Amino acid sequence: VVHGARKMEDYGRFLALLVSALLVGFVSVVFSLVWVFHYREGLSWDGSPREFNWHPVLIITGFVFIQGIAIIVYRLPWTWKCSKLLMKFIHAGLNTIAMILAIVSMVAVFDFHNASNIPNMYSLHSWIGLAAVIFYALQLFLGFAVFLLPFAPIPLRAALMPIHVYSGLTIFATVIATALMGITEKLIFSLKRPAYSASPPEAIFVNCLGLLLVIFGALILWMASRSHWKRPLEENAKVLRPIAGTPEGTEAESTMTDGSNADRSDLRISSEAARKQNLKLDEAGQRSTM
Amino acid sequence: VVHGARKMEDYGRFLALLVSALLVGFVSVVFSLVWVFHYREGLSWDGSPREFNWHPVLIITGFVFIQGIAIIVYRLPWTWKCSKLLMKFIHAGLNTIAMILAIVSMVAVFDFHNASNIPNMYSLHSWIGLAAVIFYALQLFLGFAVFLLPFAPIPLRAALMPIHVYSGLTIFATVIATALMGITEKLIFSLKRPAYSASPPEAIFVNCLGLLLVIFGALILWMASRSHWKRPLEENAKVLRPIAGTPEGTEAESTMTDGSNADRSDLRISSEAARKQNLKLDEAGQRSTM
Repeated sequence: VVHGARKMEDYGRFLALLVSALLVGFVSVVFSLVWVFHYREGLSWDGSPREFNWHPVLIITGFVFIQGIAIIVYRLPWTWKCSKLLMKFIHAGLNTIAMILAIVSMVAVFDFHNASNIPNMYSLHSWIGLAAVIFYALQLFLGFAVFLLPFAPIPLRAALMPIHVYSGLTIFATVIATALMGITEKLIFSLKRPAYSASPPEAIFVNCLGLLLVIFGALILWMASRSHWKRPLEENAKVLRPIAGTPEGTEAESTMTDGSNADRSDLRISSEAARKQNLKLDEAGQRSTM
Repeated sequence: VVHGARKMEDYGRFLALLVSALLVGFVSVVFSLVWVFHYREGLSWDGSPREFNWHPVLIITGFVFIQGIAIIVYRLPWTWKCSKLLMKFIHAGLNTIAMILAIVSMVAVFDFHNASNIPNMYSLHSWIGLAAVIFYALQLFLGFAVFLLPFAPIPLRAALMPIHVYSGLTIFATVIATALMGITEKLIFSLKRPAYSASPPEAIFVNCLGLLLVIFGALILWMASRSHWKRPLEENAKVLRPIAGTPEGTEAESTMTDGSNADRSDLRISSEAARKQNLKLDEAGQRSTM
């Protein structure tokens, strides 16, 4: 009973954080719309500043909000009865949507720049932003090839999962940092009389949007990095393909962050133990946090 | 032998990353100096732009480089024979130095702004930067009170350690994001003929500095979040103060991310088991990663 009560309490804590994250993320999207419609020229696709305005809206909607949800989608307790494969499709699908929105939002900026004879790719924002999109595309491609398609051997999955998790969270943080740089640029360039430094209402409002993005990022990173909120191991995990049971298994294990004790790599594995080890690796390979 | 070889390989990998991080961090500091001495007016403390220039130099030296080193100081294998208390003093000391440099660097900006009649605290950079400094001060104070002073009961330490680690890494990432915003602001404001958008040498050079900061942050976060690079548990841990052995121990445990399996909170603890549990908690409380 005590254990159950503790589990419920923990569940309640997760739900509270999830609702906060969804709320902060949603309010961020609304703020980006208020920014472009109330304070700026609105949206259109005609090479004008209205085309530029798609950039913050699509980045915040796709590259921040949807990417954030994609990161924590395995954490939702009511999805734990769904198949792991379905959840992978949802994770990959959300990230693909985020990727597409990020690319469209970049096209909007290039279009606007070219129409207005503004140089492209000169700012730190553009350099880091482009790097983030490239790494995100790579992450998506590798994630698809290694974790979704059924071809990668289990030790490879186990070895790459901690890297996948680390680079996913690092890219996400970098995207938010890039958004903050973009907000800074845009406010300096577009606020003239009164200037940004005179703190007109738009400046205060968009600064608040920046704060919301940081809070959203912090909430997602917290939820993603609590190991006790991870999808539990399947009781009867079925390995559907022949086990690529080489002793590399233990090596892959030693790069995991999940099971913690380094001395586990001490394990001498017999042939049968290797089978089990691979099973465990397969599970572990699917669920490592940083 | 195989095990030993693997350990050496892993040690080599850690060293390579450490050397890279030190190099990237050091080059960042050098870049900040080249920026202010070669491209800007140099350094002085007279309310002029030369006083402002202390801001990037001290932030990059203290709040980025030294804070980064402070974060991974427990990971250095040759310190594992040193007492944990000594390492805590080094960790706290480096963070205190970083804090002091961050505060001096803020004073430089306020001084410069006031001397030049530029408003303070209007930009997103200043908002998030101030928030980061406040949270950093709080983190330092709480870390000192809970983990360095001998008064906090073990379950409290164990419960707070994951939060300490998470907020430490999140503040560090936020500081780097804030530095990137600061670079963006400064380049837009100070590059006039030619403008930032014309990509003069200073723009390219300082953009590269921004990239270096991101790489430094990514290296530190990788090293900090690999659990197999953590300081190993002490073999004969001595608990020097009476054990505050309440059953909360298990609750504290359930908030840990370290030992992974959530069902460990199932543990029924007898009085003797509670002693052991607390011992383990004490260790765990000192060494959680995210």
